Amino acid sequence: MNYPGGLKKTFKKIYSHKNRGMALEEELNLTCHYYLSKHIAVIHKKPTPICVVKVDYTNKDALIKEAFFEKPSTTDYNGIYKGRYIDFEAKETTNQNYFPLSNIHDHQIKHLEDIINMGGIGFLIIRFTTLNLTYYLDGSKLLEFIKNENRKSVPITYFQTFGYLIKDGLNPRIDFLKIIDNLYFKGE
Amino acid sequence: MNYPGGLKKTFKKIYSHKNRGMALEEELNLTCHYYLSKHIAVIHKKPTPICVVKVDYTNKDALIKEAFFEKPSTTDYNGIYKGRYIDFEAKETTNQNYFPLSNIHDHQIKHLEDIINMGGIGFLIIRFTTLNLTYYLDGSKLLEFIKNENRKSVPITYFQTFGYLIKDGLNPRIDFLKIIDNLYFKGE
Repeated sequence: MNYPGGLKKTFKKIYSHKNRGMALEEELNLTCHYYLSKHIAVIHKKPTPICVVKVDYTNKDALIKEAFFEKPSTTDYNGIYKGRYIDFEAKETTNQNYFPLSNIHDHQIKHLEDIINMGGIGFLIIRFTTLNLTYYLDGSKLLEFIKNENRKSVPITYFQTFGYLIKDGLNPRIDFLKIIDNLYFKGE
Repeated sequence: MNYPGGLKKTFKKIYSHKNRGMALEEELNLTCHYYLSKHIAVIHKKPTPICVVKVDYTNKDALIKEAFFEKPSTTDYNGIYKGRYIDFEAKETTNQNYFPLSNIHDHQIKHLEDIINMGGIGFLIIRFTTLNLTYYLDGSKLLEFIKNENRKSVPITYFQTFGYLIKDGLNPRIDFLKIIDNLYFKGE
């Protein structure tokens, strides 16, 4: 029996998630929820931008019958920590040696640049899923790489040299604010 | 002929927008775009949260076939200005004498409170459409009202006394940062 495309994709997705443990996004959402509940930081994931085409209003709750996913114009997560504006994009890659820059849209990179110029804290959280390694890469280091290199992918050695490994934790699971404390609030 | 509910709603929406000029959301988006293009501030509207139920993957671009609108857990707009975190909710009301608090969810009010406690700048932009008056109300004043009053709506006199009228402009159309300059950056 041939499954329609949708079903196959769903099966694949669930299977791959199972294989590599919890997905980065879920872990980050739990982390942000922990920060919020402990009054440490207010950071939320933005909803996925969706363009709604057709809506059925016949029932009490409007039902969307046709819509499609749009390209995000900003990064996924933003919020506030110790009075500072926080902004980051999180991505997973199955590559073992490099992170392909095609995973991040040009306007997302432009957005991170704008944020840094405004005095905000902008960065990436990149997980190499097959190695189970999660790195923090400061936005300034990402922009430096793009400025100086012609390569379309960032080698893992760049993350090892200029990024910071985030150790898995229980609660919070991905304690990226620890790295921000060291980078931005060391004297405090 | 009886139109289905959906069509009627669409007609009504377009008609009412026409009646009162450009909708507040559109004007705020133009304002934020102006701020961004002039490197004054980076403020974006968050996408509407939508829960996707059914997706058709048969074509190259995934098509959403079933979804519904979710309640937002945060405010609509956030970003950064002069290094400070900015967060606000914008709402219109056709009422002439008061703004009904039912227009703002409890967790949005809680969110504004969290933001203020973290050192961010949180506020409301409320337009009384029939009067064509748009007010800035600082988050602190909203929280004070909720704490001290049992009323389920904020009278326009409260906006006149504790808020700030935002004059219509051409570019930017709703220059709310002018008010923030006066409130938060006066000494600079």
